[in-house]
Amino acid sequence: MDQRVREHAQVLVDWSARIGAGDDVVLSVAEDAHELGVAVAEELGERGANVVTTYGSDEISRAFLRGHDGDFEADPAHELALYENADSVLRLGGGRNTTATTDVPSDKRQAYSKSRTGVREARMDTDWVSTVHPTRSLAQQAGMAYEEYQDFVYDAILRDWESLANEMARMKDVLDDAAEVRIVKEREDQPPTDLTLAVDGRTAVNSAASVDYDSHNLPSGEVFTAPYATEGEVFFDVPMTINAQELRDVKLTFEDGEVVDFEAGQNEDELAAILDTDAGARRLGELGIGMNRGIDRFTDNILFDEKMGDTIHLAVGRAYDACLPEGEAGNDSAVHVDMITDMSEDSRIEVDGEVVQRNGTFRWEDGFEA
Amino acid sequence: MDQRVREHAQVLVDWSARIGAGDDVVLSVAEDAHELGVAVAEELGERGANVVTTYGSDEISRAFLRGHDGDFEADPAHELALYENADSVLRLGGGRNTTATTDVPSDKRQAYSKSRTGVREARMDTDWVSTVHPTRSLAQQAGMAYEEYQDFVYDAILRDWESLANEMARMKDVLDDAAEVRIVKEREDQPPTDLTLAVDGRTAVNSAASVDYDSHNLPSGEVFTAPYATEGEVFFDVPMTINAQELRDVKLTFEDGEVVDFEAGQNEDELAAILDTDAGARRLGELGIGMNRGIDRFTDNILFDEKMGDTIHLAVGRAYDACLPEGEAGNDSAVHVDMITDMSEDSRIEVDGEVVQRNGTFRWEDGFEA
Repeated sequence: MDQRVREHAQVLVDWSARIGAGDDVVLSVAEDAHELGVAVAEELGERGANVVTTYGSDEISRAFLRGHDGDFEADPAHELALYENADSVLRLGGGRNTTATTDVPSDKRQAYSKSRTGVREARMDTDWVSTVHPTRSLAQQAGMAYEEYQDFVYDAILRDWESLANEMARMKDVLDDAAEVRIVKEREDQPPTDLTLAVDGRTAVNSAASVDYDSHNLPSGEVFTAPYATEGEVFFDVPMTINAQELRDVKLTFEDGEVVDFEAGQNEDELAAILDTDAGARRLGELGIGMNRGIDRFTDNILFDEKMGDTIHLAVGRAYDACLPEGEAGNDSAVHVDMITDMSEDSRIEVDGEVVQRNGTFRWEDGFEA
Repeated sequence: MDQRVREHAQVLVDWSARIGAGDDVVLSVAEDAHELGVAVAEELGERGANVVTTYGSDEISRAFLRGHDGDFEADPAHELALYENADSVLRLGGGRNTTATTDVPSDKRQAYSKSRTGVREARMDTDWVSTVHPTRSLAQQAGMAYEEYQDFVYDAILRDWESLANEMARMKDVLDDAAEVRIVKEREDQPPTDLTLAVDGRTAVNSAASVDYDSHNLPSGEVFTAPYATEGEVFFDVPMTINAQELRDVKLTFEDGEVVDFEAGQNEDELAAILDTDAGARRLGELGIGMNRGIDRFTDNILFDEKMGDTIHLAVGRAYDACLPEGEAGNDSAVHVDMITDMSEDSRIEVDGEVVQRNGTFRWEDGFEA
């Protein structure tokens, strides 16, 4: 076995999920994540955890959903009981075909998802962590050779997380103390970006790929908060696939916190549909600052893309509760769609009038120019 | 997909497990049983069942057990809750290596099994059914080519089960009314077999591969009961692998229901160890009559071998409760080891002095000679 698979399993079990003796763990293994499953199972055994292994197969889901008439029973007792009694859920992604469920009618998929609300809440109440095993299917989605993609994934995952968490804590402190963030990008080859966002009273999350940091993805490596009162315009130069449609060159204009104008270089209809979902879909739910320098290219996989160093992302739609004052409701929506822009050139992040990052370099790093 | 995979799924879901709308089903899919898993999931969807899919991976079990120190917690809450709330458990066997767990120390394996007593009882309380998907690994164990093995498996599974159940009901009636069974075999090339077994007061099980018949294997096709007061000698001409040891040419001599002498042409030590397990290991727990003529050769897999037409099998060790009068304890033991002998030549089964089967032909069949 590739030594990196074992290291991935160790990072997942120790740093991310903090598994201890007697923990009741659900280990979900995707179709081609078997090898990582084996490595994780050995780590779980060594820590004295208890394991139920589930099979996360898109092809089995597709067959079940296509066979079903769509009138799903809510929260089946056995499924609910499994997650209600679990301490941790480790989800190892890595299927054989990223488009395996595209011929399931979307209303049936939504009805199924809705019928599992209680199951999902029970799962989210555990110390859950999602990661991926590098498969050929994911390499293909990323447009990369298999071994090249393995290098990419392990560079992103096998970090010094303690050290990254400490660096991200600086960024969190800056955002927590801030009233306003300004994102400016003046590249000649792109429409201008100049956006101000209020963050006063909001709490940033140091997403350090560990349940101890309220962070549930491995890799992670971003600091995010829930902005409001957004004003200005922003251009997203990173393409992204939403509902199997590639969105490119999205431009949004905000007034009073709301999108009042939008354009897309491709699939503008899909963008319109997202923004029309509900009232909250026209307001921002998230401002995220990517700080994982192990991720050095876009692979059309949001788990990686939004954590890339020298990028920021904004999500229209739902805000995370962790960013909001106790008892306060943030922006609510059925959607949460992330869009990313590269900040490595002719760009800066200002907080309350002071530059915190210029051309991808933070003010606490060598080479920073205020 | 091979049409036979779909038919297998239908037989499993309808005839064997009798799945209906709203049933909470645990679908356990072995490493290489994915294709059957897909077919079964579609059937379960069509019937309106609810599914949790688990992954039955020997390699993951091995890794977990080898990692663990062996001090297992009893019946973890999440695992117990899953099975206590399930209506049916469908186990699709078919791994990649039948010897994948041989380097797990047997005491650790036993400790794990013992720690899961409550989980196992909860699972046995459901309408559970075990079947196998024909894999290359199982073909290799059977000494067959892959496509040849597929034909073999589907011949055994895709039967007219209704009709076989009716025929087996005849054999069950004969045994239920009987006081004594005699097994005689007079082949010149083998040591003689002449065994009498008391079955008075015992109930035979018509194992017709359906939970409605108290039968939990697909394929099945045997009628079995719990004999006692065994006298005489028996020679087993079918080799079998027990604990990764091949037993050949086993000869047992019984007096007053107990093995008083034994021989094996190979691995006699393993046979001795089995018989020395406990007091019950020297007494019979089962007499089974194989009636599935779709199974026409031995493949070193007890799921198939013991159901083969024109064979009988005897198990030393534990008896099944279903064969015993209400409240009566049958032979008890930690083991239940089946041994098989071919009855197609120079052989007969007598019940209370009347021949019921000669040279593999039952008395209700054409060509029977009393």
